[in-house]
Parts: sequence; C-alpha cells; structure tokens
Amino acid sequence: MSLERILHPGARKLVVSPEEAAALIEDGMNVGCSGFARAGYPKVVPTALARQVAEGRQARINVWTGASVGEELDGVLSSQGAIHKRLPYQSIKSIRKHINSGAIEFIDQHLSRTPEMVRYGQLGDLDVAIIEALAIDEQGNIILTTSVGNSPTYVKKAKKIIVEVNTAQPPELADIHDIYVPEDPPHRKPIPITHTSQRIGTPYIPASWGEITCIVESHIPDNPYNIMPGDGDTKKMAGYFCDFLSQEVKAGRLPAGLLPMQSGVGTIANAVLYGLVDSAFNEIEIYSEVLQDSVFELIDSGKLKGACGTVITLSETGQKTFRKNIKTYREKVVLRPQELTNHPEIIRRLGLITMNTAVEADIYGHVNSSHVLGSQLINGIGGSGDFARNGYLNIFLTPSTARGGDISSIVPMVAHVDHTEHDVMVIITEQGVADLRGLSARERARAIIENCAHPDYRPHLQDYFREAGRKTGGNMPHLLDEALKWHIRLRDTGTMRVG
Amino acid sequence: MSLERILHPGARKLVVSPEEAAALIEDGMNVGCSGFARAGYPKVVPTALARQVAEGRQARINVWTGASVGEELDGVLSSQGAIHKRLPYQSIKSIRKHINSGAIEFIDQHLSRTPEMVRYGQLGDLDVAIIEALAIDEQGNIILTTSVGNSPTYVKKAKKIIVEVNTAQPPELADIHDIYVPEDPPHRKPIPITHTSQRIGTPYIPASWGEITCIVESHIPDNPYNIMPGDGDTKKMAGYFCDFLSQEVKAGRLPAGLLPMQSGVGTIANAVLYGLVDSAFNEIEIYSEVLQDSVFELIDSGKLKGACGTVITLSETGQKTFRKNIKTYREKVVLRPQELTNHPEIIRRLGLITMNTAVEADIYGHVNSSHVLGSQLINGIGGSGDFARNGYLNIFLTPSTARGGDISSIVPMVAHVDHTEHDVMVIITEQGVADLRGLSARERARAIIENCAHPDYRPHLQDYFREAGRKTGGNMPHLLDEALKWHIRLRDTGTMRVG
Repeated sequence: MSLERILHPGARKLVVSPEEAAALIEDGMNVGCSGFARAGYPKVVPTALARQVAEGRQARINVWTGASVGEELDGVLSSQGAIHKRLPYQSIKSIRKHINSGAIEFIDQHLSRTPEMVRYGQLGDLDVAIIEALAIDEQGNIILTTSVGNSPTYVKKAKKIIVEVNTAQPPELADIHDIYVPEDPPHRKPIPITHTSQRIGTPYIPASWGEITCIVESHIPDNPYNIMPGDGDTKKMAGYFCDFLSQEVKAGRLPAGLLPMQSGVGTIANAVLYGLVDSAFNEIEIYSEVLQDSVFELIDSGKLKGACGTVITLSETGQKTFRKNIKTYREKVVLRPQELTNHPEIIRRLGLITMNTAVEADIYGHVNSSHVLGSQLINGIGGSGDFARNGYLNIFLTPSTARGGDISSIVPMVAHVDHTEHDVMVIITEQGVADLRGLSARERARAIIENCAHPDYRPHLQDYFREAGRKTGGNMPHLLDEALKWHIRLRDTGTMRVG
Repeated sequence: MSLERILHPGARKLVVSPEEAAALIEDGMNVGCSGFARAGYPKVVPTALARQVAEGRQARINVWTGASVGEELDGVLSSQGAIHKRLPYQSIKSIRKHINSGAIEFIDQHLSRTPEMVRYGQLGDLDVAIIEALAIDEQGNIILTTSVGNSPTYVKKAKKIIVEVNTAQPPELADIHDIYVPEDPPHRKPIPITHTSQRIGTPYIPASWGEITCIVESHIPDNPYNIMPGDGDTKKMAGYFCDFLSQEVKAGRLPAGLLPMQSGVGTIANAVLYGLVDSAFNEIEIYSEVLQDSVFELIDSGKLKGACGTVITLSETGQKTFRKNIKTYREKVVLRPQELTNHPEIIRRLGLITMNTAVEADIYGHVNSSHVLGSQLINGIGGSGDFARNGYLNIFLTPSTARGGDISSIVPMVAHVDHTEHDVMVIITEQGVADLRGLSARERARAIIENCAHPDYRPHLQDYFREAGRKTGGNMPHLLDEALKWHIRLRDTGTMRVG
C-alpha cells in the first residue's frame, strides 16, 4: 500500500486489510460512519463486511451516518440483511425498499440532532466509527474528504475507530474543513460563528479526540450526484423566487445584500441558485448543508461572497471543474460539521433565507417532505426542519402537480406532517407565490389555493374549504370524512382527479 | 391622579384620561400590548376603547400581545367586534368563540417568533403599543409589572406608546426584570446567556427605545390564575416524571444536578413541579416561560437554585404569599422578554428538560396541542414548539383519556399536528412512560400503545397498527380510510368507544 497519505509514523503501523478491519465490527454493534449526500462515506470496509456476511458471518448492525450515503455502504449492507437499524437519513432505492417493508428499522431525524443525542448517550454507546479520510497528517490528525457530517462526534465517542484513507479524493481538499464540536450542557458556551465563512476550529479532527484503531486504504471516488436539468416549471419557480427576494428588499424587509441562503438538495434548489447567477444580486452568501454545482457556478460568476456547508456533492462535470479550480474555491468555501451548518443557534443568529422542497402542502400550509400517502418513506426530513424553524424567511417550493397531473401537490390535508403551518412562511409553485406571513389560517387557505394550486384542482380545493367552513367551522376548518379522500383516490385509482 | 409612580418630571405631563388615550387608537391599526399568561396586560385603555366602540365609534384593530391576556383586553374588545386579527396566543372563552366562528382572524405563532417578525417588518407596521408599567423612573425608563412578554420590542417599534401605570401591582417587582433585545441580522451577535438567572440587560425598558406618547393610571390587579388541583392521575404522572429523571441520572444521561427545566402552564405542569418539592433533587433550575405557584414553593423548600421566565402568574393564595416573600424571591427569579426565555439559541445551549402537555398524541408520536377534532382552536401552540424542538430531553404529558373515558388521548392519527414525531422524545400518561429515543417509527408505535394508551383503547390501537402494517406497510404504516375514524366517531356519537 502507498503510504504517502499517512504521514504520522505511528499511524503507518495501523494499516490493515479491509477484511481485518471489517472483522472488528460485530453483530448488534452501533457503527457511526462518515458521509453526507453520498459524499465522503466509507466504501471499502462496509463492502468487505458485506462480503463476510454473504459468506456466512453473522453481523447485523445499526448504521449511523451524517445523511445519505452510496451503494458501497447502504446498498451492499442492506442487500445482505446486515442492517438492523439506520439513522438519520437515506436516499437510495436499495435501502429504502427494506425500510418500507419493515425489514430495517429507520429513525428519521433532524440532522442537527444526531450528534448531540450521540454525545448525550441517548442513542446508546457507539461501538465503532468508520471515517473516510483524505490523509493522516504528521501529528496523527484526521483530515476529512468531501463531507464532514457527524465524523468529529463519532471519532470523539466511538470505542474503536477505523479510518479509510481514500487516495481517489483530491489532496487539495485539505484545509477546506473547519472542525469544532460544542461542549455539552451544562458547560456549553455560545458558538462564536457570526458570519458565513468564519473559521472557529481546526482543519482536521484532532488526534487527541480518539485513538485510531486501524487504517485501510481506499481508491474509490464518490459517486457523481447527477441532478436532473430543470424544466420550464422549475425555471418559473426560480424566477418567482428571485422576484420575491427583490420585492422584499424593495419593501425594506431584507437588506440589499440579502441574508445568507440555505437551499435543500435536488433539481429545484439547484435551479433556484442558478437563477441567482443571472440576477441583480451580488455578494451572495450561502449557509447551507449541501453545496451543489450551482454554488461553484456562483463563485465563477463572481457573485458569491462566501459559502459553507457540510458536504460538497457534485455532478460528473461539476467534479471535473471543482478539481481544476479547487484553489480558488477553497478561499470562499468552508466545510463544517452538520451540527453547525444546521444549528438553530447559528441559523437564527445569521437570519437565513431558507428554501426547501415539499412533497405536498395542504391548504393551511402544513408541509409533508418525507412520506408518500402518509406511510411510504421517500428520503427523510433531513435538515429541512433545522432550517425552516429558525430562518428569517422560510420558503417551500414544489411544482403544483406531479406524475403528469395525477397528483396535486396542494391537498386538503397532508397525510404526513414534517413542517407545521407555524414554520411555513412562503409557498412557491409554478403557478405563483403565496406569502403567508401575517395571515390567519383561513387567509392562508385562500392564498395557497389561489396562488399555488393547479387550475385543474383549484375549484375542488375551493369547494373543500367552503364546505369545511360551512359544516365544521373552527379556526382551521376541516371535513374529517373528506380530508384524506384525495390520497385514498390516488391509492385506489392512480389519480387524484375526480371521475 | 397620584403621581408617586411617575418620577420623571416630563413624563408627569403626559398623563391623560383612558378615553383620551383610547382615542389615539384608530380603525385598522396594529396594536401591540404587554401581557402574557393573563398577567401584566393593559386593562384601562382597552376597556375605554371598548366603551367608545359600544357607543358607536368605528375601531376594529389587530391585537398583538405576548401571549394570553384577560377579559379587560381580549374579552371587552372581542365582545364589541373591535378585534379584526389577533396573534400570537389566547386562552379565554370570550375571544375563542369569535376565533372559531371565523369572526376574528387568528395567527397561531411560536412565541419566540413574534418579536422577530415584528422587528423585521414581516407583520406590517406597529401603530400603537399599550404597555402596563409599574412605574416610570427618574430617567423616563419604563419599569414593567408581572410580565415582560414582547413589550421591549413593541416599545422599540411602535409609532405611538401608551403606558398604563398600574398602582395595583406591588412596587417590589422593580429590579426583577432583565431587558435585552437582540440586534437583527446581519449584525447579530451571540446572546450571552449561559446560566438561568444571569442578567444581561437593564431592569427597565430604556427611555431611549421610544418616546412615550401618553400615560394613563390604572388600579386593576391581574386576575388570579387559578389552577385546578391535581387528581390521582396527575400525581401518577408527576411520579413517573421524577422517577424517569432519576433513572436518566443513574444511567449517566443527565448530570446529577439535572439541567434547567421548562414546564408548560396548567394543572399537570404545576403538579409535576410540586412533585419535585418532595423529590431527592436539589439545586433545581427553571428556565421557562411561565412561573406558576409551584416555582415559589420550590424556593420555599430550599430546592431551587434559580428561575427565569417571562411572567409570574399566580393563584389568589400564590399572589398573597408572593407579596409577602417578594424580597427573597427577587434574588432567585429573573423575568426576561419571551424572545429570550423561548430562544432556540439559549434553549439548545442550556440543554433544557422540557415538559409540555398534549391534547392528543398518535401512535407514532405526533402531538396535537392546539385543535380539537382538527378544527376548533383551544388556546394555541404557545411556546411548546420553541422548547420541544430545542431541549435536551423533551417530554409530553397527557392523561390517557379525557371526558370520562370517551376520548382516547392516544389515537391512530392526530387530526392536527403541532409537534412532529421528530421532536417528541418521551410521552407520559397515567398508564406509564414511553421513552421513544432511538426507536424507529414502528417501535415507537409499540412503545406508545403498550405504555401510554388506556387499556380500554389499547387493543383497538393494536388492531389498527397491525392492520396498517399488513395492508399498507411503509416506514409509518397508516390506513388512510381508518386514520381519522376515531375523531369522526367522537364527533358523531360523542365517544371514541366502538359500539
């Protein structure tokens, strides 16, 4: 094995084979892994473990990560029945089917919560950490790769630490990280972040935070995170978003330089940020979880002042550009633990403009972002709650219909609630913008139906709202017999359309 | 008028009659009032305004407060049709009926959000503030009474400021307040609170924050906040709560001195705090919104290290004891703006143990704390979300049944969600404790049904959960056709019982 990435002499003696490392992981253990948005997760040791299980070894474990990871972790282990419990997020098909069948127990968590609960002992002991690293430096510090996630806390708390040094990750990533773990109550002090790209910690996980048990070499690059190109509706939403911010600035409700922005992951969020490239805004700041291709295009366009996230996840083209321009990017971009990118204290202090996508919203503005038909998990709540609850201006985006118009994204009552109406300030669809600030429940319903619902469904929503007001009344009128009928119709007939 | 409470010579010239002050309030205005938990709200000017409206003056206004206020504000104005819109909370019958009929538009808000949204201009301009004061000091500063609420922000932002100097409030309340309003983004700094009774501001609202327009004299005491004595079930829940904390300390998941505690308002919360009087815990700290009788009993018992809240609201007996011992209490108790008692930054930093009551919870742990049968408002979400989302250990309490057993507080699906399952760590009923930390959705259902549901309803919940798993599957199995049937049955037959 090439040892060029392991500079500490003692650490060089810790190198073992993937099989030897995997053998440390025993049945029933809690295993904390690096990785977020399919970047920076361990690939070699989980694959070796899956192979051992396939060959008859008994090892069914609980896998904790930062957020979603790729096939070489969630895929290979879940297909071998080697995962008992999984938290706090996932986003690939191969594990999702086992979660929805009940074969894997899943905990859907706010991403800012996991590291605290781990340190507080509320999720049990952490037996093993598996951390993908760029390198081990002269002092034995661990330098991370494309994501920080929960790695610092996992290294602090795990009884055994396995490091995968991945030579496929570009060495120039070094120094992009800022590692800081808050003290725990009752000794906690204010977290000193007051601007986006401020550094408050170390560019590595200090050697003092845990003894490395063994080191394994890896050469597997992150999977590219391919984003569907935005369609006409996506561009409309991006346009509404930029116009809305301009109006807010004009009305004196936002500073001319805006406030730092957070965006969820995926096509819509990416398109909205692309929209900013062509906007009149300069000096944009991003305080977010996931830094996608669009963030680096904003840097290239000269419009970005600074950005921080817990992960860089890029398309194939994005990966190439990133490696080419990495030195320029490193001056503007910081990667932090997800506990800090998603921390209520910082989000509230900085006053973020947050934008997240909804699966569906109801007429009063409750948002479902995780479950189809109330039961089937898609990905999870992720960080959307951390941001929407604490931002200065909280926006949810969704096309007004899905599946060729058979599904209305605006429904009488959502079948699952991730964000209560209290946190949903603005809803944007390709139909328009509903600004819900300062509106009562009944006023919200009128605004959402008129501005956001698709014309095919609008009259039916109006009927529902009128009848609910007439028959039931109340602060938030609902017809309990009708509230979930749209979902039932979809389940039974394949469409929410009537007749 | 006696001027002993108005020490600033200029301020003495501002005294007018209640009618003159009320005449400043015009039709359509936004009016921000002091007051929280029916304490420290203006009484004289609203009553004068209601009288003017009764006599034919047109004045329908939007009333913003800290939280709930008494009859002399919500009651007199709503009965005259003088309230168009109301936020962020209420708890008296006279206004509630107008909200549920749709005659008054109501915004149900997280209590930490209101002052920010007001300062950011997101709720429109604030035309008038009406603030109950204990006194105006030599420098013209406003000294508040039994609550702080949103008064500091209302004084900062209002175009006109009416002060009601209330001589019925005990002068010894002076110095109990700590007034601090955070800067707004992008200039915000960390809020320096790191322990419960720390003082970071001034004991008054500085004269520099707003020019007082006029002053009115008042002699009306706060209504006593009478709490129903706890019954056997309440005592059982209090017992479970104390036992649970002891176990957490024993398991090393809580420090031996516990962490600061928050409790909602009402009989159950009060009983739980009384339970602590007889517990083995010493050096208790309270970081909460509402300080009820039980907090002062904890001081009397020598077990309380320090407490802060945004209001002191007491029973008739409690008021008497308070006035007698006020000097002792003042050393341990701080009243802050609700923005700080309920601030995510501080709640997360201090690591609170939070306890709030649920109207109902569903088998997966979503909690409804505000609406009956999905539509009829009771009080509002209040501060429960601010605390439950950011605490170290978040507990919801409810008796397992209501209305003589006709209502099960544990249902298949709640008809309104205020707290999503992500934030509900522990549920306690008189049946027992469900510790949901580290459990998947399906495991949560089993724990809640087995430990919290009433035996009369338990088999029916088990049937629902089993059938949902069999017919629908998914991460969080639900039968869409059955999910709200329990509420429909209650609506139609007066009971959730079958047959």
